[in-house]
Amino acid sequence: MAEDFVVTPWEVTGDIDYDVLMKRFGTAPIDDALMARISKYGEPHFMLRRGIFYTHRDLDILLNDYDKGNRFYIYTGRGPSGNTHLGHLMPWIFNKWVQDTFKVPMIFQLTDDEKFLFKDLTLHQTTDFAYENALDLVALGFDPDKTRLILDTKNIETLYPLALAVAKKTTFSTAKAVFGFGNDTNIGRIFFTAMESAPAFLPTQIEGKETKVLIPCGIDQDPHFRVTRDAAPGLGFPKPCMLYCKMAPGLSGGDKMSSSDENATIYTTDTPKQVKKKVGRAFTGGCVSVEEQREKGGNPEVCAVYKYNYFLFEHDDGKLKEMAEKCRRGEVLCGECKVALTQKINVFLENHQAKREEAKELVDKMAFNGFKW
Amino acid sequence: MAEDFVVTPWEVTGDIDYDVLMKRFGTAPIDDALMARISKYGEPHFMLRRGIFYTHRDLDILLNDYDKGNRFYIYTGRGPSGNTHLGHLMPWIFNKWVQDTFKVPMIFQLTDDEKFLFKDLTLHQTTDFAYENALDLVALGFDPDKTRLILDTKNIETLYPLALAVAKKTTFSTAKAVFGFGNDTNIGRIFFTAMESAPAFLPTQIEGKETKVLIPCGIDQDPHFRVTRDAAPGLGFPKPCMLYCKMAPGLSGGDKMSSSDENATIYTTDTPKQVKKKVGRAFTGGCVSVEEQREKGGNPEVCAVYKYNYFLFEHDDGKLKEMAEKCRRGEVLCGECKVALTQKINVFLENHQAKREEAKELVDKMAFNGFKW
Repeated sequence: MAEDFVVTPWEVTGDIDYDVLMKRFGTAPIDDALMARISKYGEPHFMLRRGIFYTHRDLDILLNDYDKGNRFYIYTGRGPSGNTHLGHLMPWIFNKWVQDTFKVPMIFQLTDDEKFLFKDLTLHQTTDFAYENALDLVALGFDPDKTRLILDTKNIETLYPLALAVAKKTTFSTAKAVFGFGNDTNIGRIFFTAMESAPAFLPTQIEGKETKVLIPCGIDQDPHFRVTRDAAPGLGFPKPCMLYCKMAPGLSGGDKMSSSDENATIYTTDTPKQVKKKVGRAFTGGCVSVEEQREKGGNPEVCAVYKYNYFLFEHDDGKLKEMAEKCRRGEVLCGECKVALTQKINVFLENHQAKREEAKELVDKMAFNGFKW
Repeated sequence: MAEDFVVTPWEVTGDIDYDVLMKRFGTAPIDDALMARISKYGEPHFMLRRGIFYTHRDLDILLNDYDKGNRFYIYTGRGPSGNTHLGHLMPWIFNKWVQDTFKVPMIFQLTDDEKFLFKDLTLHQTTDFAYENALDLVALGFDPDKTRLILDTKNIETLYPLALAVAKKTTFSTAKAVFGFGNDTNIGRIFFTAMESAPAFLPTQIEGKETKVLIPCGIDQDPHFRVTRDAAPGLGFPKPCMLYCKMAPGLSGGDKMSSSDENATIYTTDTPKQVKKKVGRAFTGGCVSVEEQREKGGNPEVCAVYKYNYFLFEHDDGKLKEMAEKCRRGEVLCGECKVALTQKINVFLENHQAKREEAKELVDKMAFNGFKW
């Protein structure tokens, strides 16, 4: 069954057909005209060129407003249920490109409350993970003057009135339809979507005038922002504009990198040895024997090593294409690709881990309203 | 139908049979043995003697703990949906007696979030009402060193983690069964009960050791505290102990004083003239003519003027009994009782309004964690 997949903020299963998902959610494709328009602000990021960020809501309206000289805000976030892996960095790297290209402020929400409510974790654990995740975000080089980190339990005094306003306009029927909640759902989970809506309205509150917001994030978050967008007009806020990406794949070949399989997940704090071991075990599109692969070639479409290059590590479209062709022609073996990817990842992580150390000072500076971690 | 009444935190309708309600909620009566025990700590308040505070949960357990030298906390509160009327003062006056008798701290929660979610009011309005209500509470003379006022939107950073813990343990099924919520209920209302639970766990958090809590309040709040008590053991907190009162009656003869009928409601800021007018219009148990009343006598059981004396203004049981008997014998006319009640109320309000002015300094001092109104 082609549509046999599930994508919600808390569950991604099955083989995702992203075109079907776009239709199901009712979002718009990023067509050639929109791509041409984006190009006017700067060379489109490879994640746009490759259709990783592939669908949107009202991006054109946001750009119309920007062209009139109105600055927007970026808002994105992370549910701190574990340590940061490379899949988490993917949309954050794109967000940095948006910040650099449009010179705009960013709000980054860490939903320690959400992960407490949805996972078998204590609030201490989710708050600790939030700090670790924040170090990784900051390490990517976001502008410290223009970027603010929100931790739900620490910034709740600011968020709560906005969340209440959204909650007052959102019935259980809606939450049930959008998220699939039932009688056994806890009442915190039912309320939580209001907390994810709140930061989308903060920029207008901070600026004291209608201020648009762009939310670049995984398409699995769309259910939340449908609620946000429905509530916005009645509360006197502009609807947030959305820019959605596909899920980063795991090393075992699945559709979404997941912390539940530690051996198929590369964390930002992994050592070169760990990376080598994990990449070494990755699922590829190669044949069972060297001879067969030399003769028939491999299949990059299903290869996790190729996907890692596609989603994160090979920014040059020409080189990526060459990589795929060489594979198909049997000119390169899986072992060689694994060695090359391992090296790329380790070079990236060496730099990232150094920046992550420096981030320990910056996370305090970037805490919204100066909260203490 | 004897049971044709509804009592929830947001709806009180029909002729309440308080004995049936006690059975329905499963609370325990305050029997002679318990009254005798209470008498050891001081002369029982007239609201206990008259069975206005008439039912409890675990009051005996609380007293056992107190007898071992363990101080408890009082926790009660107010949903700030309007200005304070005399019906609101009734349980607060009792709470002051508890504080004076047991020399214990009190936490008073003002649920501005609740009234925003349940009423057609803005958060500004409910927060403003909360301040006005707080002045009335403080005017009653609670110990400023032992009493702390919580305003939900201002103390949310303290309350939210506790509320999340309760919410994680409370399903929609429970909220539906306890409060009668449905698909059209907004998600803020569904979550709110967790916010009313939170202050019941604060004392243990503040003291750093298991600390019992007594909640003296209207029996309409029992649904909330059933949720609180169910969640407590799993969170490592003692179950709060409950002491419930009947609803204060309105001047028009209804079972609950309500702001929805302004002419039948005496506010704490009413002038002597307004009081005279409102009491003058009160529903009584008198006959249609003076002659008939002299002959047949009146019925104090249904008389709002008598009930005001019973619930609030005649503290002397002997005088109250005499008042009822004189009425039944036709020795006193409704007009006379109205004049006497008007005078009692106006003497009370003159003093209360002076204390209410002085309270404007104290409310800052009594704000929990020093929040600014």
